[in-house]
Amino acid sequence: MTGRTVIRGGLVVTASDEIHADVLIENGRVAALAAAGTEAAGAFTADRTIDATGKYVVPGGVDAHTHMEMPFGGTYASDTFETGTRAAAWGGTTTIVDFAVQSVGHSLREGLDAWHAKAEGNCAIDYGFHMIVSDVNPETLKEMDLLVEEGVTSFKQFMAYPGVFYSDDGQILRAMQRAADNGGLIMMHAENGIAIDVLVEQALARGETDPRYHGEVRKALLEAEATHRAIRLAQVAGAPLYVVHVSAQEAVAELTRARDAGLNVFGETCPQYLFLSTDNLAEPGFEGAKYVCSTPLRPREHQAALWKGLRTNDLQVVSTDHCPFCFAGQKDLGRGDFSKIPNGMPGVENRMDLLHQAVVDGHISRRRWIEIACATPARMFGLYPKKGTIVPGADADIVVYDPHAEQVVSAGTHHMNVDYSAYEGKHLTGRVETVLSRGEPVVTEREYTGHVGHGVYTPRSTCQYLT
Amino acid sequence: MTGRTVIRGGLVVTASDEIHADVLIENGRVAALAAAGTEAAGAFTADRTIDATGKYVVPGGVDAHTHMEMPFGGTYASDTFETGTRAAAWGGTTTIVDFAVQSVGHSLREGLDAWHAKAEGNCAIDYGFHMIVSDVNPETLKEMDLLVEEGVTSFKQFMAYPGVFYSDDGQILRAMQRAADNGGLIMMHAENGIAIDVLVEQALARGETDPRYHGEVRKALLEAEATHRAIRLAQVAGAPLYVVHVSAQEAVAELTRARDAGLNVFGETCPQYLFLSTDNLAEPGFEGAKYVCSTPLRPREHQAALWKGLRTNDLQVVSTDHCPFCFAGQKDLGRGDFSKIPNGMPGVENRMDLLHQAVVDGHISRRRWIEIACATPARMFGLYPKKGTIVPGADADIVVYDPHAEQVVSAGTHHMNVDYSAYEGKHLTGRVETVLSRGEPVVTEREYTGHVGHGVYTPRSTCQYLT
Amino acid sequence: MTGRTVIRGGLVVTASDEIHADVLIENGRVAALAAAGTEAAGAFTADRTIDATGKYVVPGGVDAHTHMEMPFGGTYASDTFETGTRAAAWGGTTTIVDFAVQSVGHSLREGLDAWHAKAEGNCAIDYGFHMIVSDVNPETLKEMDLLVEEGVTSFKQFMAYPGVFYSDDGQILRAMQRAADNGGLIMMHAENGIAIDVLVEQALARGETDPRYHGEVRKALLEAEATHRAIRLAQVAGAPLYVVHVSAQEAVAELTRARDAGLNVFGETCPQYLFLSTDNLAEPGFEGAKYVCSTPLRPREHQAALWKGLRTNDLQVVSTDHCPFCFAGQKDLGRGDFSKIPNGMPGVENRMDLLHQAVVDGHISRRRWIEIACATPARMFGLYPKKGTIVPGADADIVVYDPHAEQVVSAGTHHMNVDYSAYEGKHLTGRVETVLSRGEPVVTEREYTGHVGHGVYTPRSTCQYLT
Amino acid sequence: MTGRTVIRGGLVVTASDEIHADVLIENGRVAALAAAGTEAAGAFTADRTIDATGKYVVPGGVDAHTHMEMPFGGTYASDTFETGTRAAAWGGTTTIVDFAVQSVGHSLREGLDAWHAKAEGNCAIDYGFHMIVSDVNPETLKEMDLLVEEGVTSFKQFMAYPGVFYSDDGQILRAMQRAADNGGLIMMHAENGIAIDVLVEQALARGETDPRYHGEVRKALLEAEATHRAIRLAQVAGAPLYVVHVSAQEAVAELTRARDAGLNVFGETCPQYLFLSTDNLAEPGFEGAKYVCSTPLRPREHQAALWKGLRTNDLQVVSTDHCPFCFAGQKDLGRGDFSKIPNGMPGVENRMDLLHQAVVDGHISRRRWIEIACATPARMFGLYPKKGTIVPGADADIVVYDPHAEQVVSAGTHHMNVDYSAYEGKHLTGRVETVLSRGEPVVTEREYTGHVGHGVYTPRSTCQYLT
Repeated sequence: MTGRTVIRGGLVVTASDEIHADVLIENGRVAALAAAGTEAAGAFTADRTIDATGKYVVPGGVDAHTHMEMPFGGTYASDTFETGTRAAAWGGTTTIVDFAVQSVGHSLREGLDAWHAKAEGNCAIDYGFHMIVSDVNPETLKEMDLLVEEGVTSFKQFMAYPGVFYSDDGQILRAMQRAADNGGLIMMHAENGIAIDVLVEQALARGETDPRYHGEVRKALLEAEATHRAIRLAQVAGAPLYVVHVSAQEAVAELTRARDAGLNVFGETCPQYLFLSTDNLAEPGFEGAKYVCSTPLRPREHQAALWKGLRTNDLQVVSTDHCPFCFAGQKDLGRGDFSKIPNGMPGVENRMDLLHQAVVDGHISRRRWIEIACATPARMFGLYPKKGTIVPGADADIVVYDPHAEQVVSAGTHHMNVDYSAYEGKHLTGRVETVLSRGEPVVTEREYTGHVGHGVYTPRSTCQYLT
Repeated sequence: MTGRTVIRGGLVVTASDEIHADVLIENGRVAALAAAGTEAAGAFTADRTIDATGKYVVPGGVDAHTHMEMPFGGTYASDTFETGTRAAAWGGTTTIVDFAVQSVGHSLREGLDAWHAKAEGNCAIDYGFHMIVSDVNPETLKEMDLLVEEGVTSFKQFMAYPGVFYSDDGQILRAMQRAADNGGLIMMHAENGIAIDVLVEQALARGETDPRYHGEVRKALLEAEATHRAIRLAQVAGAPLYVVHVSAQEAVAELTRARDAGLNVFGETCPQYLFLSTDNLAEPGFEGAKYVCSTPLRPREHQAALWKGLRTNDLQVVSTDHCPFCFAGQKDLGRGDFSKIPNGMPGVENRMDLLHQAVVDGHISRRRWIEIACATPARMFGLYPKKGTIVPGADADIVVYDPHAEQVVSAGTHHMNVDYSAYEGKHLTGRVETVLSRGEPVVTEREYTGHVGHGVYTPRSTCQYLT
Repeated sequence: MTGRTVIRGGLVVTASDEIHADVLIENGRVAALAAAGTEAAGAFTADRTIDATGKYVVPGGVDAHTHMEMPFGGTYASDTFETGTRAAAWGGTTTIVDFAVQSVGHSLREGLDAWHAKAEGNCAIDYGFHMIVSDVNPETLKEMDLLVEEGVTSFKQFMAYPGVFYSDDGQILRAMQRAADNGGLIMMHAENGIAIDVLVEQALARGETDPRYHGEVRKALLEAEATHRAIRLAQVAGAPLYVVHVSAQEAVAELTRARDAGLNVFGETCPQYLFLSTDNLAEPGFEGAKYVCSTPLRPREHQAALWKGLRTNDLQVVSTDHCPFCFAGQKDLGRGDFSKIPNGMPGVENRMDLLHQAVVDGHISRRRWIEIACATPARMFGLYPKKGTIVPGADADIVVYDPHAEQVVSAGTHHMNVDYSAYEGKHLTGRVETVLSRGEPVVTEREYTGHVGHGVYTPRSTCQYLT
Repeated sequence: MTGRTVIRGGLVVTASDEIHADVLIENGRVAALAAAGTEAAGAFTADRTIDATGKYVVPGGVDAHTHMEMPFGGTYASDTFETGTRAAAWGGTTTIVDFAVQSVGHSLREGLDAWHAKAEGNCAIDYGFHMIVSDVNPETLKEMDLLVEEGVTSFKQFMAYPGVFYSDDGQILRAMQRAADNGGLIMMHAENGIAIDVLVEQALARGETDPRYHGEVRKALLEAEATHRAIRLAQVAGAPLYVVHVSAQEAVAELTRARDAGLNVFGETCPQYLFLSTDNLAEPGFEGAKYVCSTPLRPREHQAALWKGLRTNDLQVVSTDHCPFCFAGQKDLGRGDFSKIPNGMPGVENRMDLLHQAVVDGHISRRRWIEIACATPARMFGLYPKKGTIVPGADADIVVYDPHAEQVVSAGTHHMNVDYSAYEGKHLTGRVETVLSRGEPVVTEREYTGHVGHGVYTPRSTCQYLT
């Protein structure tokens, strides 16, 4: 598009600043910001003016952890790139970084191509890819270099799920060494899956089959162990490390220890760990299955440690790990055997609002909200300042956010393709009003005005914390 | 002034961003930023254009720790507000926060008035005041509330210098409690002065009178002890704490521990601790006296801990503790008795350049340079975003910085009113070229174009890290 | 005495061993141990045989912290050396180390002489002295050397009680330096009394006068602070440190940190901190006054940290801090003002039994019981192996302990000269049956067979943990 | 034997005491101790009197980690039970606990029987067995219970040597769970062998084939990682853990952290880590191969951390990991490929003397010498007080030690069946003079008076630290 848009009268909130400024958009990018009421602001001319009086003008969210159409346990995550990115837009997120999957015995290229095929032409907002590396071998290692060059600069490995995604410590070390050379970032699912599988087998043998046992066998200590191990392997490799979906306070403690030592170690948590707990997993009548994901929900007291970690910057990013499975027909697969419940929860639509609620509740500041949800994920994965902030030159991915609106979360009103909400009935203060993606209105005053195919693949440079 | 200035072609570096943008100044403030080459940028019109091609455009430095005309040990710091602020401007610093001094038996008001009188009409750049509280009593505590209201929102106490500035733990606790209520920030000189004075007496009795003994008696462990004690007292009071001039790695460790616990505890270090060491204190022929300050310089290995602290954000601010005394006539007072050497070093002119050198040397990133030298001190002391950054609405305190220029530091060329440089002969890459204070050129392409009285008193709001 | 006694059939339990052995006593000393049933055991001949079948044969307790007839707050601890040592014997303790007090302005010698006068000829069991140093000055420091030579090898200082026992950090440092030279051990009352007195004044001003406020103003953080400060000062002085009556988990953490660093730092706790809590201080109707002591009782959750510290050897000694004041007429002094309640609790008679109960309850092992109550205090204060164990050559201070007897603690049956018991009504398993002091029966099958004046002053060598 | 022996005039040194006492031996056991000079001592009658005047009388050493005739890398450790136990006796060690080996695919029973066959009738001193578990499966787990019952109460697993001894984390967890139930103690070789093997392959590919690369690829961080992992798995299993041959300061730090948390975690180090370093591994001309063992020797600065750990009791035991291979013909196998060098060093004869030297050098106290070399290994592995101390009822395994004798260690004079000494030419103060095993003289005033077959298999009870 070539038109000019100006957003007037709002409070522009970024990770670093809160300023009363008008924002001028040219050609899908932020062209200029001018202090409200100045001559310079007055001189802005535009085809379209958005009145943000009394609202926040914030960067579109960057969700660095989604799994659209992800195969897992014999089924697929229920959101396609079409439904999932539309829901993301509704929730104020304008960029996702999804995980392409290498299957054992296949090349990274095959996996990446498959994910490009799923996404291309189907997305409402921009997207990039991480690569799940399930099979480290000499060819894979070479492919990692190529992928970094073409904008897939982060690689996820699993210390859990033996026989599926699992990498042993030697494979992890080799991948980390390669990343240390090519600038890639290793993302780690840090749970000792070998030990967990023993506990799973033992629990099932004792007849402990309900969803809540999922939380009991995937022990916090085994998340902490794997976190520490990943850190040590990264130290040996001289590589940075990003630990995904941190849920246990003992794991946060390991990150803190590593960061105090000055290591390039980073941690992500997710809204489900901040707002939900093992109480949910223990809901009666198989309802707990809705909350089965890995790492699992933890007892309520872990939440305080996660909030503290977000405040002390021992955790840097909040992503969703969006990986929805319908309660009927999918979560069902695990009735009578919790280990058969597909692991994953919906959330791509709820993240920005839940974290704004955390601002309202006093857990984090307004700027920190934007930092953990927009700016840091963008920097971490090489998208900044194109994404994640509002500065001259950035993509005009902008959300007009009404901090005073009230809403009630519900599967009845959400836009994700899944038959339940993990936050059903939760009252929230604050709501997305209008969403621009590269200057184009995707949501306009709570009407969907986007279209399939607007979103484009966005190659990424390398992690910006590694200087 | 009402003119408009535009700075074109530079790389605007703030604590959060590095963008190619033109900066428009109206009425002494930043009116707008526009991405280089956009229509919006082209539309900027101005009376004066500064060409920053190939240069950095950075916020003016904020030096939160200076002592102009400070009385100490029977003499006065040799820089007046006139000479000191002019030198600051030469070094790219556009705001200082100086310490007004309460003398025992006098009110805060008297001390503050005296400092206003010294500064008013004499400064080249803007200035604010902290208040040194030497005599906590019921009246002083009430005065603290008044001072916060009028923009003196931080109060320094000393755990050292018994009989002069020293406060006992009860006085500290009371002041902290008051600050917890009125939003003030307690700044602490954290050294166990009671214990140190014993070691001083014993050293002198053993005939250890040379400057280097200053470093030996003021032990790192006694800095760490006082740092920990201040933290605990702040915890009891429910107050935040800012520890000034941290020099010992053991003290950094105490800050790290407190910050890991989520406490509002902050730490400042100074260039002298980052670049100099006890090797300097041990220079022969009384030369070591040039480096006598408190906390003292530490053995060289402490430097790595300080740099790490700056990278991990366990230290947040680099100030100068500028408190110059001439070698001839002032430092001289301590020949034959190191305890008589006036404590203090010059540095207000060197800070921005030394920290840029740290960027060149790989200790910190370019954005972190601006964060620790401009943005964080401004936020910490309630001056942000008026000072410390370049955003629409901010004061146009801006430095055009040439990152490639070479210079050699020398008393022969510096502008501070002191007969030696602590960094004599040091080669640096990078140099201030042009400095604006509220849009007015104070230094223009390395000519002084400022004038006495341009700088005005700047009341401050409270610390912005305390939500 | 010259007779021979043999104790047959018991389980000899020391800090290191549990053996079935007969114990032969000659001339008040342990002459030999022989394995039960051996020829060697059969060859033992004696004038008196004590049958210990089914009983423990343990070393007499060493209580390293008592205050007999201690002046405090205008009154005196209610046990004299006569009543107090008799009660100690009833409780299985055969040695006390009491605190002689230097008053400000007086010499150590005067204080020590006064305590010798109080004790001499009045004690049922052996005793030694620590010296409370209230007034560090050049003369006192010299006296410390003399006292070490004559067997008073430990010196207590107070970071609390300004104006009474308080030493400032300079005085502490000087005393520690002296101890580092002469082999003495500094014992520290570690509470920041300067800060606490501010909180006391504020609490009283708010009308908070009940005993429970004693616990609230003497904050755990201020115990931890002082503990850390004492450790750092000891580090500077190169001296060992023994912290008395540790009650706060945060203080234990400081000791742990110091010990992990390999420092010669030791910690003592007392039964009241292990078995009682702020719940007792909050008992209605001024009953809480019975539990007023300093450091104060802590919330119940601190108990676990203390037991853990005893198990991990981060705490090494359990003493009583026996300092009884009658509820009627003494504790009364603080009605309407908790700060006037004499600080102290009775306990010299209860320690061995309460710690045996901890064995029964699984907190500590049988050998650890003897270690923390007998062997370590003896080693710590230069009395080992004369006291604190049962080995050939040791004084025959021996308790025959019935581990199966049941008892109920009560002021109605105890032998301390105080009108209440802090453990009134508590059921305990285990009881002292017979007590020998240097071979003489002081308690014989629960009859008192001792006599005033049997106990003698016992000079001590220096701490045996300092190699 | 039925005769009586008395040892007169020595200083009896145990882990807990140093006493001047005569020791009476009846029927191979310590019957009695009597204080020197007492009637009781005078009454001792004996067939044989050993004069220990001016000597120490100490418990015979307990070496809890030996590998006699151990198959490794296609060869066998060069000491048989005959030669190895004779050398042990020469060095003042009277009990060894050797490792029986389960091969993959075979039962524990087969392995244990094979070791019994090797040892029976061949030993000069008493011996017990640990069991190396190489193949955890349901049958093995059941066998563990049986072995505990018959006195093999400790089980070693390897996190290194994939394909040989290696257990994965699931196998480790299962074995630990079993041990938690049956009272067994898991001993862990804690090195991340999976990662190390990657580094080995890479080093060889770079042409780094010399012995010193053995030390470089087996990184301290990978020992620390595995140590931490083993601790976490033990926490999950609720089991105690004993980490063998700790060499890296980072591993000691993990043990310290676990022990501060009150976990039943123990650590052993060996003389080679205390006295040797990577400097030895780097000796020219393949000489470094003499020092190849795993964990490897570390840079010299790790020694201080190990000594500190021994003093703070974060390390509890010093064993030898005696596993000798001749330089000619065995170590040779790894010329041109360090990974082919048989891992292991001789030392069973040197341990008591080297640790006495540490007493002389001030690293540890005399009692701590006996504790780490005799008493604690005996307690740890269920042999106390039969072994490891001198108390009535204990086996009369006693060494008369001359603390003033001088010796020079050399392969020319040692008794181990190996062609080099790791300590060749080292001067030591102190030497074994006479050694009794169950009262029988094995070494008599530096003549060998023992005989093959005197030593008997000694079943063990469970670890005595687990109450």
